[in-house]
Amino acid sequence: MQIGTVIGNVWATRKEDHLIGLKFLVVQPELPDKAPINNPFIAVDRIGAGVGDRVMVTTGSAASHINPESDIPIDALIIGIIDSIEIER
Amino acid sequence: MQIGTVIGNVWATRKEDHLIGLKFLVVQPELPDKAPINNPFIAVDRIGAGVGDRVMVTTGSAASHINPESDIPIDALIIGIIDSIEIER
Amino acid sequence: MQIGTVIGNVWATRKEDHLIGLKFLVVQPELPDKAPINNPFIAVDRIGAGVGDRVMVTTGSAASHINPESDIPIDALIIGIIDSIEIER
Amino acid sequence: MQIGTVIGNVWATRKEDHLIGLKFLVVQPELPDKAPINNPFIAVDRIGAGVGDRVMVTTGSAASHINPESDIPIDALIIGIIDSIEIER
Amino acid sequence: MQIGTVIGNVWATRKEDHLIGLKFLVVQPELPDKAPINNPFIAVDRIGAGVGDRVMVTTGSAASHINPESDIPIDALIIGIIDSIEIER
Repeated sequence: MQIGTVIGNVWATRKEDHLIGLKFLVVQPELPDKAPINNPFIAVDRIGAGVGDRVMVTTGSAASHINPESDIPIDALIIGIIDSIEIER
Repeated sequence: MQIGTVIGNVWATRKEDHLIGLKFLVVQPELPDKAPINNPFIAVDRIGAGVGDRVMVTTGSAASHINPESDIPIDALIIGIIDSIEIER
Repeated sequence: MQIGTVIGNVWATRKEDHLIGLKFLVVQPELPDKAPINNPFIAVDRIGAGVGDRVMVTTGSAASHINPESDIPIDALIIGIIDSIEIER
Repeated sequence: MQIGTVIGNVWATRKEDHLIGLKFLVVQPELPDKAPINNPFIAVDRIGAGVGDRVMVTTGSAASHINPESDIPIDALIIGIIDSIEIER
Repeated sequence: MQIGTVIGNVWATRKEDHLIGLKFLVVQPELPDKAPINNPFIAVDRIGAGVGDRVMVTTGSAASHINPESDIPIDALIIGIIDSIEIER
C-alpha cells in the first residue's frame, strides 16, 4: 500500500452507475518521512478520511474488492487512516 | 484513479469479439492543475465523454469489471466526467 | 490501452499448459504520433495481427479474461488493429 | 515478486472492516545484492516477519487472494522470509 | 509479457501456506536484443526453467491464475522458455 496525505476533493456528477454515492478524494503520495513522491491521484474513501489526514491507499484492482456481491471499477481505495509510522534503521 | 483530458478518438474495425460497440478515446493524463503528465493512452467510454472533457480514469484490470456477467479485456475506463477539483494545501 | 506497432515474433516450445496454440508477438509501444516510447514487450494475438500492424494492447490481468471458462496467465493481449487515431487539440 | 527488507511498522486504528487484525509493515525494496531501490511501501504480513527480515513481497491484486472466501483490498503481501539468494552470472 | 534471463535462485523456508513446493527464480528483464533493462525480480517457475534460460514472464495478478481451484498470491510466473525472437523492422 502507498502512504499519502489527502489534499483535496473531486466532484463528478456524471459517472458510471456503480459509483454513485462514493466519495472521491485527491491523495498526494509520500515517503514515511512525509516527503511527497510521484503525482497526486484520486482515491475512493469509505472510512471518513478528510483533507489533511495521512492515509494508506490500496491501488490497482485490489481496490475494487469492496462489495461482497460484485467488484466495481475503481483502482484506488483509502483503506486506513494512519496513526503513526515507526521506521527502525 | 487518474485525472486526464480526452484529446482524441480511435477507430479499430478488427477487434476482440467482446469489444464490439465500445467507444475508444485517447486520454492525456494530467495533474489537478491541468499540467500534462506521462503519455496519452486509450480508454473505453460508456458515459458519453468527448474531446475536451476532463475525466477520471480507472486503469488496470479494475476497468474490466463493467459487465455483471463477465469481465472483458480492457485496462482503462472513463468512470466520471469531472465537474471540479478542489485542492486545499 | 496502449498504442503500439507489432515488430516481431516469439517462439517458445516449452510453456505453461494453458498457453499452447497461442501466438506471441513483440510490440513496440508508441505515442499517437507513432513516436516509440518505453520498451518492447510480448503480447498474445488472437485477431490476426502481424508485423507492421498498429494495434491497441490491453496489459495487466485484464488480458487474462479471454476464456469464458477460466483466466489464463498472460498479461498483454492485442485487442484491436487500429484503423486511425484522430487527435484534436 | 520484489525483494525487500522490513524497516518499520504502521499503526492505523480506523480502517476498512475487512482489514481488522492484519499486521502492516514498511518494506524497503532492494536488489539481490541488498542495494535499496525505489520507495518504501506498506505490506501486510501473516507469516511473522519483523524489522530487519529480508522478504519476498507480492504486489498488485494478487496480494488480495489470501482468503478462500473473498478477496480483500490490499495490494502488497509478504509471502516469504528469504533464507538466501544465489545469483549466478 | 516481459523478456528476461534467469540469473539465480531464492530459498525461503518460511512462507505463505499456498506457496509450499513452488520454485522461485531471479529473472533479469531484457530487451529483445538481450540488453538488460530495469531491476531483477523473483518469478515462480513450473516448467523447468533454470539459470541461463531466456524466458517469457507474466507479471501482475494474471500470474496468480495457475490453479483451476483458487488463485494464489504470486505476481510473476515464467510462462515459456524462449527458443527465438525475430524482430523485423
